[in-house]
Amino acid sequence: MRIAAGVEYDGSRFCGWQYQIGQRTVQDDLQTALSSIADHPVTVVTAGRTDTGVHAACQVVHFDVRAERTPYQWLRGTNTRLPGDISLLWVKEIPEDFHARFSAISRSYRYILLNRPTHPALLRGKVSWNHREIDEAAMRSAGAHLVGRQDFSSFRAAGCQAKSPVRDLRHLRIGRFANWMWFDMVADAFLQHMVRNIVGTLIEVGLGKRPVEWPADVLAARDRRLAGPTAPPDGLYLTSIGYPERFELPAVAAEVRYW
Amino acid sequence: MRIAAGVEYDGSRFCGWQYQIGQRTVQDDLQTALSSIADHPVTVVTAGRTDTGVHAACQVVHFDVRAERTPYQWLRGTNTRLPGDISLLWVKEIPEDFHARFSAISRSYRYILLNRPTHPALLRGKVSWNHREIDEAAMRSAGAHLVGRQDFSSFRAAGCQAKSPVRDLRHLRIGRFANWMWFDMVADAFLQHMVRNIVGTLIEVGLGKRPVEWPADVLAARDRRLAGPTAPPDGLYLTSIGYPERFELPAVAAEVRYW
Repeated sequence: MRIAAGVEYDGSRFCGWQYQIGQRTVQDDLQTALSSIADHPVTVVTAGRTDTGVHAACQVVHFDVRAERTPYQWLRGTNTRLPGDISLLWVKEIPEDFHARFSAISRSYRYILLNRPTHPALLRGKVSWNHREIDEAAMRSAGAHLVGRQDFSSFRAAGCQAKSPVRDLRHLRIGRFANWMWFDMVADAFLQHMVRNIVGTLIEVGLGKRPVEWPADVLAARDRRLAGPTAPPDGLYLTSIGYPERFELPAVAAEVRYW
Repeated sequence: MRIAAGVEYDGSRFCGWQYQIGQRTVQDDLQTALSSIADHPVTVVTAGRTDTGVHAACQVVHFDVRAERTPYQWLRGTNTRLPGDISLLWVKEIPEDFHARFSAISRSYRYILLNRPTHPALLRGKVSWNHREIDEAAMRSAGAHLVGRQDFSSFRAAGCQAKSPVRDLRHLRIGRFANWMWFDMVADAFLQHMVRNIVGTLIEVGLGKRPVEWPADVLAARDRRLAGPTAPPDGLYLTSIGYPERFELPAVAAEVRYW
């Protein structure tokens, strides 16, 4: 039986998603908890691996089990065995042709930046911080040129394993409330560090270090040495994964959008 | 010279505000950092001591120093010496007749509760959590009877050192967005555990365990054994302190109201 689940986690104390010997990873903790409920080893497939320190408001996974349990039993049982920084949000039986990664048609990320003179005490590790004044209107103008189906080679990590550097960035929205800033991005998929490299590049514009046209020039050059610094992982949240409607996955609950 | 300052802190890893030998407290860490900048021992007076695990979005303090420093030097210098879970938000020179505690004319607290089936991973330690459905309309009706100048003996901790149990609860507002709930309270001052005991009592009503009239009956009885359980500290934030306008303290910045 195939099961899909929504997962929230605080990435601060994990070495990212993917299982690595001798490291604490979300995949490993989740598999340990699920295997204990299933009474057999469970392997979890994710919609998108997150890097060290990156958070998820609603990651989606699937796994195959032989054990007969109701979705409620999976949810409650697994949550009692998970550490406090991982929480299953929902569990659903799903057809065998569903695949958390290959069925996904979109990924949404939010990057949160606190723009004020003093460091964040309440949300340290949960938001990024910059003490200099950032002009979000300039960043919005610059970001508009990045939207679309493009070659994002300039914004991909050196170690990125994707075959193609082309991604369809469907949405890039920058919001601000007082000293809080949000960067919301939706794409078919993202290259490694793509969100953080775009944010780091836009911040250079927001700080006035680079002109508004610069990020478009960086994109056109297809050369990752030209982009701005990779923004730190603290402020990055995987917020939702889109799938075809026929799978009838639970809508991302509004509380997740708090992020 | 007397200086006032606004302080943000994450209470999770502190044994409350007040200095205690052998314990990590906010007062102790703050005094250590300020003394290092002042080059002499500095004692900090606070508007209101917070208990273990309780957070502050904008605590107000004052301290006296002989050292000549600009407010900017105090702010930047102290913040570089503070641990990551404390941050000075602002610093201001203030007349000698200002006293963080005795000049205060109001205190505001916010209690945040996540009401959903599964535990919070992203905001563990930063919000309280209840997995059963809570009826906020019932709590609002119940809470309305607690507002005003009243004897809050039923909602005070056994160890509370206040001389009088009478407090003027000027405002009690309960908000909800999806699965997030907020309890906002403003009073001249609060007794120890008063906010958490009121929240704990209202939640009994929200869960349908007690009738809407019950919190008013508890209040009238002036007997702390009758109130509901003390809500956990995780969700509690000291959000602002009110002072007479003549002191011209910085308005609580909007980002603080994020909480």
